Amino acid sequence: MEKLEELRKKYEEVKAQNLSLNMSRGKPSGEQLELSAGLMDVLNSKSDLKSEDGTDCRNYGVLDGIPECKRLMSEMMEIPEDNMIIYGNSSLNIMYDVISHAYTHGVMGNTPWCRLDKVKFLCVVPGYDRHFAITEHFGFENICVPMLDDGPDMDMVGKLVSEDDSVKGIWCVPKYSNPTGNSYSEEVVYRFANLKPAAKDFRIFWDNAYCIHHLYDDSQDIIPELVTECEKAGNPDMVYKFASTSKVTFPGSGIAVLGASKANIDDIKKSLRFQTIGHDKINQLRHVKYFANVESMHEHMRKHADILRPKFEMVEKILEEELGELKKSGEVSWTNPKGGYFISFNVPEGCAKKVVRMCDEAGVKLTGAGATFPSGKDPKDSNIRIAPSFPPVEELKVATELLCLCTKIAAAEK
Amino acid sequence: MEKLEELRKKYEEVKAQNLSLNMSRGKPSGEQLELSAGLMDVLNSKSDLKSEDGTDCRNYGVLDGIPECKRLMSEMMEIPEDNMIIYGNSSLNIMYDVISHAYTHGVMGNTPWCRLDKVKFLCVVPGYDRHFAITEHFGFENICVPMLDDGPDMDMVGKLVSEDDSVKGIWCVPKYSNPTGNSYSEEVVYRFANLKPAAKDFRIFWDNAYCIHHLYDDSQDIIPELVTECEKAGNPDMVYKFASTSKVTFPGSGIAVLGASKANIDDIKKSLRFQTIGHDKINQLRHVKYFANVESMHEHMRKHADILRPKFEMVEKILEEELGELKKSGEVSWTNPKGGYFISFNVPEGCAKKVVRMCDEAGVKLTGAGATFPSGKDPKDSNIRIAPSFPPVEELKVATELLCLCTKIAAAEK
Repeated sequence: MEKLEELRKKYEEVKAQNLSLNMSRGKPSGEQLELSAGLMDVLNSKSDLKSEDGTDCRNYGVLDGIPECKRLMSEMMEIPEDNMIIYGNSSLNIMYDVISHAYTHGVMGNTPWCRLDKVKFLCVVPGYDRHFAITEHFGFENICVPMLDDGPDMDMVGKLVSEDDSVKGIWCVPKYSNPTGNSYSEEVVYRFANLKPAAKDFRIFWDNAYCIHHLYDDSQDIIPELVTECEKAGNPDMVYKFASTSKVTFPGSGIAVLGASKANIDDIKKSLRFQTIGHDKINQLRHVKYFANVESMHEHMRKHADILRPKFEMVEKILEEELGELKKSGEVSWTNPKGGYFISFNVPEGCAKKVVRMCDEAGVKLTGAGATFPSGKDPKDSNIRIAPSFPPVEELKVATELLCLCTKIAAAEK
Repeated sequence: MEKLEELRKKYEEVKAQNLSLNMSRGKPSGEQLELSAGLMDVLNSKSDLKSEDGTDCRNYGVLDGIPECKRLMSEMMEIPEDNMIIYGNSSLNIMYDVISHAYTHGVMGNTPWCRLDKVKFLCVVPGYDRHFAITEHFGFENICVPMLDDGPDMDMVGKLVSEDDSVKGIWCVPKYSNPTGNSYSEEVVYRFANLKPAAKDFRIFWDNAYCIHHLYDDSQDIIPELVTECEKAGNPDMVYKFASTSKVTFPGSGIAVLGASKANIDDIKKSLRFQTIGHDKINQLRHVKYFANVESMHEHMRKHADILRPKFEMVEKILEEELGELKKSGEVSWTNPKGGYFISFNVPEGCAKKVVRMCDEAGVKLTGAGATFPSGKDPKDSNIRIAPSFPPVEELKVATELLCLCTKIAAAEK
């Protein structure tokens, strides 16, 4: 290992380069967006803008989505069309609305959460900051549950959920999880389906954001479908499932979907019909014209993978080369995901904020340290989310090298 | 006047024709939608999909709208760009969200409405059913305020608003009102701006749905701009203003806008940033490319008027021909709007449900009697909303003649 003095000298040299790189969010790169350029061409003024049931997609109407779009998304969601509502461009917006509906009107006839003294939500950590922010915004108590190699600590989840009827939900990214990139094991999913919640209105918020977002063709994570498993387990209404085409086509102009039991869907529609007359059906039609079926989507995702894979592999290679020693000694660790958008990186305890700050001062913006925990508070100040998707490869290389350098300095100083 | 027997015979003849016509909702016709066909051509895979500030419209980001779209909508909304948020395709969804935000988190730091024992909302009647449905859905008490020729009964509004701090809002369609087609007078708008509400979080819900939806080029209603007037009157935060391009381009795929004081906009954004990363920016860009400025929009609206005007004029002509006598005797009345989407039609008291049912039984679907009042209850059972926009002229003629026939029968039977 290099001497601290040398490392500091190197750091000053990098700083002098006045870098301005951003590795903070899980945004697809421009190159990835180009993959979906054709989405802009499938419809024009000469197109038939009627859906297959004769609905004029330009006009008002259709609360839950045009039939052909439900069919397409049903393949991606792995659940029947009747168990879905197609929304606008944002699955985050669906999650917010579902929570808001539970808060204002209650879940399937249960007491609205705004009438309860206490609502608790379980947050698998490290996890997705925007999930935790929603439940915090509604004043719920976010409770951390650690993410293990095969999914959340299910002993802890089972105990909390069954013993406390103020526990109303849990945030999950079951596949290529944000940020670890790990997927839940079959057993973990079955244990989810077989939870015995104390609260009748407990719901699993199953954000399958990376359902078809594999990095490798020959080595993919597969997880059981939870809406189906919950039904089998006699808990048909226990899950809300979310997904979107945000990282398939265009993040700002994709389509987002809610999946759940028929009873949940009917309950959500009870509020939804006051909220809107219908979402953008032309964009639904556009996606159907662009992807005939889920096979076309998989084919399309392989092209995304071809762009993303080298970035992930390069980050992992540099981490290995630069921090292999520290890894062996247990001071740092990172994940090697087979899909998704993130690598989870753990630096020595008490060093994450420092490392992120040092990177920032040298011109490389990372996701804020702590962001992967509720209220932005990582109790160990150790976890950093690496988001390799957006920067070009050369920039990513420079940024990762700097991250390693800062980690080495922080480790040495500690 | 024909004898009741003759009228009944005519009715049976019409019934035998097995009509199937729909005059129930304010939907633009297919012909109107064709006016915006070019909207589908302004962007394709070769287009520059960056906004003028360099933002890639395909990717994540931009909570309140791209600058050029804010500029365009600012012209339509008649307020500065900083006083706006561009949303998705539905202004109804904005209204719901704003109410929901007030309910869950409170307006600008005031007590969330879900914590109050009682929330009251004023409903100008006859009015828009979807407005009243939102506040009813949240359990508020809807209080009727009559719509007079020049706008709501402002003596009543002023009294209710200033004396009762549980009155939190009022639903208004100030221009070419739904369903009367009347516009508020200057004086009424000034009185709105100068209200002295007992509740600090009282808001005027100003749904300017028909802001540029004139039927005549040489005779247009003009109303003062309320956000500006409220500011002048020292009540800058008292109004939320809504509009959309739903009846300018495509009802299902337009863009919707919230306008308000900077303080209100900041308050709404506090919730919005948890709700979504941003709305569909490609569709925003599409609208900007299609309409360079508000003049192009006005030009476009003249084409809508050319399609709508003959429909309104035909309905009014038939009403006059068939029901002129009943009008003179004060038994029926109707409005002659200069814009918007509806004609308000009053049949003799206690007859509206009967007339609508008779039309329905003869194959012509009208807006449900009572729909223009909260909870669908018209205390006089007199008001019927005529929506002439959707059916082709020939069908509209048949439907209107039937409506007149049923009205005559009901009047005679009474």
